[in-house]
Amino acid sequence: MISRLHDPASRGFASDNYAGIHPDILAALATANEGHQAAYGDDAYTERLQHVFRDHFGARATVHPVLTGTGANVVGLQAMTVPWGAVICAESAHVNTDECGAPERIAHLKLLPVPTPDGKLTPALIERQAGGRGDVHRAQPTVVTITQPTELGTLYTPQEIAAICAYAHDRDMTVYLDGARLAHAAAALDVPLRALTTDAGVDVLSFGGTKNGLLLGEALVVLDPDAVRGTEYLRKAAAQLASKMRFVSAQFIALMESGLWLANARHANAMARRLAGAVSSLPGVRVVRPVQSNAVFAVLPADVTARLQKRHPFYVRDEGTGEVRWMCSFDTTPDDVDAFAAALAEELAASGADTEPVTP
Amino acid sequence: MISRLHDPASRGFASDNYAGIHPDILAALATANEGHQAAYGDDAYTERLQHVFRDHFGARATVHPVLTGTGANVVGLQAMTVPWGAVICAESAHVNTDECGAPERIAHLKLLPVPTPDGKLTPALIERQAGGRGDVHRAQPTVVTITQPTELGTLYTPQEIAAICAYAHDRDMTVYLDGARLAHAAAALDVPLRALTTDAGVDVLSFGGTKNGLLLGEALVVLDPDAVRGTEYLRKAAAQLASKMRFVSAQFIALMESGLWLANARHANAMARRLAGAVSSLPGVRVVRPVQSNAVFAVLPADVTARLQKRHPFYVRDEGTGEVRWMCSFDTTPDDVDAFAAALAEELAASGADTEPVTP
Amino acid sequence: MISRLHDPASRGFASDNYAGIHPDILAALATANEGHQAAYGDDAYTERLQHVFRDHFGARATVHPVLTGTGANVVGLQAMTVPWGAVICAESAHVNTDECGAPERIAHLKLLPVPTPDGKLTPALIERQAGGRGDVHRAQPTVVTITQPTELGTLYTPQEIAAICAYAHDRDMTVYLDGARLAHAAAALDVPLRALTTDAGVDVLSFGGTKNGLLLGEALVVLDPDAVRGTEYLRKAAAQLASKMRFVSAQFIALMESGLWLANARHANAMARRLAGAVSSLPGVRVVRPVQSNAVFAVLPADVTARLQKRHPFYVRDEGTGEVRWMCSFDTTPDDVDAFAAALAEELAASGADTEPVTP
Amino acid sequence: MISRLHDPASRGFASDNYAGIHPDILAALATANEGHQAAYGDDAYTERLQHVFRDHFGARATVHPVLTGTGANVVGLQAMTVPWGAVICAESAHVNTDECGAPERIAHLKLLPVPTPDGKLTPALIERQAGGRGDVHRAQPTVVTITQPTELGTLYTPQEIAAICAYAHDRDMTVYLDGARLAHAAAALDVPLRALTTDAGVDVLSFGGTKNGLLLGEALVVLDPDAVRGTEYLRKAAAQLASKMRFVSAQFIALMESGLWLANARHANAMARRLAGAVSSLPGVRVVRPVQSNAVFAVLPADVTARLQKRHPFYVRDEGTGEVRWMCSFDTTPDDVDAFAAALAEELAASGADTEPVTP
Repeated sequence: MISRLHDPASRGFASDNYAGIHPDILAALATANEGHQAAYGDDAYTERLQHVFRDHFGARATVHPVLTGTGANVVGLQAMTVPWGAVICAESAHVNTDECGAPERIAHLKLLPVPTPDGKLTPALIERQAGGRGDVHRAQPTVVTITQPTELGTLYTPQEIAAICAYAHDRDMTVYLDGARLAHAAAALDVPLRALTTDAGVDVLSFGGTKNGLLLGEALVVLDPDAVRGTEYLRKAAAQLASKMRFVSAQFIALMESGLWLANARHANAMARRLAGAVSSLPGVRVVRPVQSNAVFAVLPADVTARLQKRHPFYVRDEGTGEVRWMCSFDTTPDDVDAFAAALAEELAASGADTEPVTP
Repeated sequence: MISRLHDPASRGFASDNYAGIHPDILAALATANEGHQAAYGDDAYTERLQHVFRDHFGARATVHPVLTGTGANVVGLQAMTVPWGAVICAESAHVNTDECGAPERIAHLKLLPVPTPDGKLTPALIERQAGGRGDVHRAQPTVVTITQPTELGTLYTPQEIAAICAYAHDRDMTVYLDGARLAHAAAALDVPLRALTTDAGVDVLSFGGTKNGLLLGEALVVLDPDAVRGTEYLRKAAAQLASKMRFVSAQFIALMESGLWLANARHANAMARRLAGAVSSLPGVRVVRPVQSNAVFAVLPADVTARLQKRHPFYVRDEGTGEVRWMCSFDTTPDDVDAFAAALAEELAASGADTEPVTP
Repeated sequence: MISRLHDPASRGFASDNYAGIHPDILAALATANEGHQAAYGDDAYTERLQHVFRDHFGARATVHPVLTGTGANVVGLQAMTVPWGAVICAESAHVNTDECGAPERIAHLKLLPVPTPDGKLTPALIERQAGGRGDVHRAQPTVVTITQPTELGTLYTPQEIAAICAYAHDRDMTVYLDGARLAHAAAALDVPLRALTTDAGVDVLSFGGTKNGLLLGEALVVLDPDAVRGTEYLRKAAAQLASKMRFVSAQFIALMESGLWLANARHANAMARRLAGAVSSLPGVRVVRPVQSNAVFAVLPADVTARLQKRHPFYVRDEGTGEVRWMCSFDTTPDDVDAFAAALAEELAASGADTEPVTP
Repeated sequence: MISRLHDPASRGFASDNYAGIHPDILAALATANEGHQAAYGDDAYTERLQHVFRDHFGARATVHPVLTGTGANVVGLQAMTVPWGAVICAESAHVNTDECGAPERIAHLKLLPVPTPDGKLTPALIERQAGGRGDVHRAQPTVVTITQPTELGTLYTPQEIAAICAYAHDRDMTVYLDGARLAHAAAALDVPLRALTTDAGVDVLSFGGTKNGLLLGEALVVLDPDAVRGTEYLRKAAAQLASKMRFVSAQFIALMESGLWLANARHANAMARRLAGAVSSLPGVRVVRPVQSNAVFAVLPADVTARLQKRHPFYVRDEGTGEVRWMCSFDTTPDDVDAFAAALAEELAASGADTEPVTP
């Protein structure tokens, strides 16, 4: 038996992947344990998972469990493109900013980033990078990728996604949706998952589990089988094929078969709203983006940030503007929120920030 | 709660990764659960893991948990080579035969495979591919990789590994050891892990957890820090950086802090010997390779193989020769072995194979 | 003897690589011909070329002849970076827009493009992409690349280049200069080549020959040997190592040993100024960028463009704004310019554009 | 005017790419010069070249001029395979031994090399690597590449090539022929080029110009348009798209429109036979491979090799066995051969080798 090395009662707002495993997910691992099951996905749990995902995403959907969000993105995008293809994305997209160049290095893709005001692409923004078809000097734009919710916590409406898909399909491009927190988007918009994906015309997506209570696991979901080639080979070649896949699949069954995915996401979203409410009235704090999912983005004085981080770690998004990011997770409690807001209030008071409000 | 979809009492000999999670490992996940811990390896369990691995591999060792064996290999080999480098391996090496080209595609490496009689490299065999230093037309051989035990179940002695390392180092090459089942090798040879690695001069290795009772997890272990560059970046860029790394590390702590790694491996090896003993006397069966770890390679009549596979799945290694592979795992029981041997005897009898023994 | 298939008196303004071979360059091929010379660069002409380039770029310079501009860029950038590195460039840079993804696909590099008003980077613009050092989630910015003159025909002053180099070096980054038309920049600024490169702190550059009178040939020039690794291997691995390199080197000797490089570039620049002068007074035409090298960028009515292109092919840079590009080359004559301007005037007249001037 | 830096009367046997430009080829450059022609292949010479190559290879053939042999191979093989594909080749193939890993690094291909006795593949040898179709753990064998003549100077008969193509096509694989010296093979076998390619079922080939009198230029020839995807994009992305392509195409027209390709190759082959004849009777020299094209492979005493190399540079193929390679080219004269053989005789005499004959 190993020793516990951490305080199980300590929780913060740094990231939803600082949280642990939801108890139902841990129980699912035990259920799927013992006995032998074929490796690499030929097991009863992965088979069952197909049905579970089809209930959410429609009868043509196929799910490929993978290990990381970067892994889902590189396998999915690669399966959708020709080797001379390029992928249009928001400049703030995770694939562009936070994957250490994996799309370029592993998937051999060129990204065509577009600056956006709020992390969201639109047909007009995509248009800026969509040209040059048939010109051999230009990596050919073949895929558009969007993140829902975006890396800035903003949401696309189903109509906005549908407009992007229609635009892309009209130009022989397909659409990939990075859904590392798609559950949170569906919860926030109060729509089924398929409203944001299948019904809107998305071709391929990733559906994140890790940030919503799984130990580890992301689902690459192919909605249009004609939009991909070689997904199974590319998953293996990207080192994303788990040998004991039953345990990835069992976690996803536990998350998706019941309403756990939705309950967890709703809870995290509610905590973010609670947090935004608690801090937005504090002098010296400004919530700078719409709180639409489980993230709160705020600007506060640098000294306050520094002192508060020592008590509760969190990330600064932009050193220049002083913008910070606070994430809520499935296990965030109202007390956690209130204590954090109180700590913030203390630090603001200590800095005298209340007399010098932050201005835009 | 999800439903159990499989028979927890059913076990076979197809692969050690058909087995599940050892109970102590599952318990470790619960111990590491609850509360928040920093993601991406900045947690207490990953910190502790450094000490655990240093106890096994020496004070200069650094461990980088990754997600798959392929992942460990591509990150490790890449960290060891320049972009114009090449890796000498046995033709039968997993990196060459079973990773869907990941070393070439993800790590941009050229492999220089050498045919071997038994899966083992020697300085003389390495020499065949070691030439051309300084010739710009030739990808420069900079790394030698060996697998211990080999993909054919054979073992290198510590002296053989030391001879390979000495040869390589004399030629400015470094040595990577693919240790997906290194525990089984140490158990079989009855030596500490460092006798096969650190003390023999190995520079970098992977140490497998998944095939020895983990849910998922491989450890990339750097023994000589001067032999690598950018390991942390390359792990991320290869989509091998788990966000909730504490759960990978906690599993490895449970495996390595106690003697579980050794007990599991010894047991699997003992079951393989028991199996070899039980079947080698059967007419029509020939055990064709030394049973040195947890694998048994045997030749049997094709019709017997086909019928036996329907009762107990396993893999045919070579359709031409009729060679099959049987793997034992930490949870294989003596009864499992005896029942399998009995089933084999029945199928042999049914085919009349006993009157026509297999000849070399 | 083959038949001539084209009109040797026909010249246009589409591109400087529509021009042929300068007579002195063709003569150099004959001089270097006959007899045997060692392949792959071990010949007397390539050896001589080192001295010729050191006369221009300083005693530490090393020249590596390659075959295409894309080839020079991918070899040079790759030699300057670690495999987890990224390259900051202007969004309009040739590496980003016109190499069909070669930097990503061949050199496995991530590009970090920055929108610019005029194709020129500045320290402040570079700063936008220079962050995240030490963060494993971010491809590490290790190189800044600038194009001189830029793809928009604009020029950096020596001081501006020096400022960029100082900024980059202060942050452990190095600087690559894409000099496909560097001769034209030096001619326009009336400075020696080293004023724009060696003396300004540039680490590595390409020096273009093809656009200045060569049959084919670009020179990758390493100014700081410590800024690169494995250039020779990377050139071969990028399929840029000419076997009969003496003929690439001899062309460059002919270009650089005498003042031909400068005379050709000065002439092309002068023709561009003449063209700008001839058309800028035409109603309906607006020259929209400074004419600093051998390119003229102008906006004209779409119907005029379409009719004029049928008489003299040239490229539209931006369909939306109607901006076109006219390039002059070493063999452009004053008569060519005057005839083209006259044709433009005719087409403008035919369209009645003179009564409807283009407005910004 | 540049100075001549070499002796135009000095010729050797090191390589056929030590030779210069055939006078007719140099003349063709002048013919294609002057005036403007569209860049990147939209010129009259490249258009004409299509017809010239169709005369040789049939009406479905398409030719894509490229810059190096490595470039032809990486573009062609890549166009023929899926990203998870692998290429079966002889272990001695140029793609495997002499391209610094370009197929792996640039084309992201896995090579599956097969040891051969004489550089030639056969269906039975290909079979060794052709398995594992549909197994995601194995890079999928999709292309077979053969070199004609092989790197060991041996030749495939048309029937042997047809048998390989039939075997490959039966298994859903296509066939690439590396024809860096295909002219020499056709000359030696006294068959038209299409007998070795189109008529035998080859899908794609490279046809070498550089080793047969061109300044620089290789032709990637697609015989079956259904066997490739994206060739034009891949050529650009591999930095193999010449801007002034008219000069590459004009050289090939001069080579292929007349019988120059054949005359040059026949002459080089004849010189090799003369050389083999002149040396094979010398005591101490053993010609160790059939002299079927323009190469002679011989074993001679190491001290003789060392002294002879000082007088006439050439390459040692195998330090262990003392095997050397002598290449003849289009400009090798009978006097060159006789003088070289005399020099060899002198060095043999000086070493007393005639009293100690080399034994197999």
